[in-house]
Amino acid sequence: MITSFSNERIRHVAMLQKKAALRAEEDVFVAEGLRLFEEVPVTQLSEAYFTEGALEALKQRGHADVTELLSSGRAELVSDAVFEKMSGVQTPQGALAVVRRYAYDWPALFPEGKAPLLLLLEDIQDPGNLGSMLRTAEAAGAGGVILGGDCADVYNPKVVRSSMGAIFRLPFMRIRELSYCFSTLHGRGVSIYAAALDGAGCFSEEDLSGGCAFIIGNEGAGIRKETIDEADGSLFIPMAGKTESLNASVSAALFLYEAARQRGYEK
Amino acid sequence: MITSFSNERIRHVAMLQKKAALRAEEDVFVAEGLRLFEEVPVTQLSEAYFTEGALEALKQRGHADVTELLSSGRAELVSDAVFEKMSGVQTPQGALAVVRRYAYDWPALFPEGKAPLLLLLEDIQDPGNLGSMLRTAEAAGAGGVILGGDCADVYNPKVVRSSMGAIFRLPFMRIRELSYCFSTLHGRGVSIYAAALDGAGCFSEEDLSGGCAFIIGNEGAGIRKETIDEADGSLFIPMAGKTESLNASVSAALFLYEAARQRGYEK
Repeated sequence: MITSFSNERIRHVAMLQKKAALRAEEDVFVAEGLRLFEEVPVTQLSEAYFTEGALEALKQRGHADVTELLSSGRAELVSDAVFEKMSGVQTPQGALAVVRRYAYDWPALFPEGKAPLLLLLEDIQDPGNLGSMLRTAEAAGAGGVILGGDCADVYNPKVVRSSMGAIFRLPFMRIRELSYCFSTLHGRGVSIYAAALDGAGCFSEEDLSGGCAFIIGNEGAGIRKETIDEADGSLFIPMAGKTESLNASVSAALFLYEAARQRGYEK
Repeated sequence: MITSFSNERIRHVAMLQKKAALRAEEDVFVAEGLRLFEEVPVTQLSEAYFTEGALEALKQRGHADVTELLSSGRAELVSDAVFEKMSGVQTPQGALAVVRRYAYDWPALFPEGKAPLLLLLEDIQDPGNLGSMLRTAEAAGAGGVILGGDCADVYNPKVVRSSMGAIFRLPFMRIRELSYCFSTLHGRGVSIYAAALDGAGCFSEEDLSGGCAFIIGNEGAGIRKETIDEADGSLFIPMAGKTESLNASVSAALFLYEAARQRGYEK
């Protein structure tokens, strides 16, 4: 069991929690928490750390393979005090994984046998919002998420946590400018709609049963004008009262679920 | 201009930011930020504080009445350093209001001329979620929100901020146990649906055009069993992939907007 704060691996994980550049350089990210730990695909696991308490909890929840991880050296037991030092949350649960990143290619975002459904994000800054959108996109049956412009780091530990495991399963792609993918999407028969307060049509009155992608923009400023101009159309969500806008992840959910509803959902 | 940290009013506001009991005792809450400040109804404003920078910004945005607030003594100019001391956020915008609380009675939650639409919250813990739900409920045209059980303090500064001003406009009511309001709701012809993972019907296949109320439960544990039992029915949101649940504020948005869609929205 690691009990020393100065252990090199412990200090390294603490750095990975904080430094996006280091995570990128090593092509990994950190997934912390019992539930999240349970969902890490074994093929992607690089290192794992848990406290004795978490080990017991994982065993009780039927994860006999954690013992094997320990004996093979891929996992290490650490003391509670040391875990607190590695942790990025206020109430550590004692389980943390260093996970290898994914590399998806375009076909991964277009599962066969169904009309494409994609979420396109531009300049989304809030990690909680970003994680929640991954979670909702998976639930709505989207094929994937494309992140363009100045989005938060998708491998930020807070994004990973609030994705509730969707980050392990939902294909996503990072591109410099969102519009760079528009011709690729058009080539696959996808209509691109900007979610805009002054959109041309109401989101639930448009036929969304064919291939479609929805652009959600920055929490404050919305989608960039040039991006809206290059989209195929714009749609608004009706709002009563004096609300000026909806939360970005709420808007994303309404668009994606309206498309899912029109398609009859999927299992 | 107040330039001293030890000024009693400054210290008092800093306490109001942190202490729920003090806010309750004085029947006020704190609204911070330029946009939020602009939305405080003048009838509810108790005290206001701004920096010179914020005063300029407010004037430029057409709020000539801020000068009047200053001359009448309801507002005070404070130095940037002092404002930082009062502020509850990382990047203070220099405008803060102490606002008198609202007291709504039942009729306020049932605007005349339309089928009732209510959001019922049980044990919602995350202030950001709670604020977002107020914001979405207003936008969807709900009559109000009822908070029962162990919900976060609706006057928590983070709830106030993430409500984006909805807290000033949307009627809400705090009751001890959520089910205490069920007979009142039934008396007004409202059907009460629990949002549950194992709900009996799909939320978008139910007729929600009549009076209805949706119960959203705790972020982790969901709605209490006894509350579900007393509801008129339960509805689920279909989920693809391996997602176990949706974010509570996302679920609330999908339910409320499905009802709004079926009713043809409102202006």
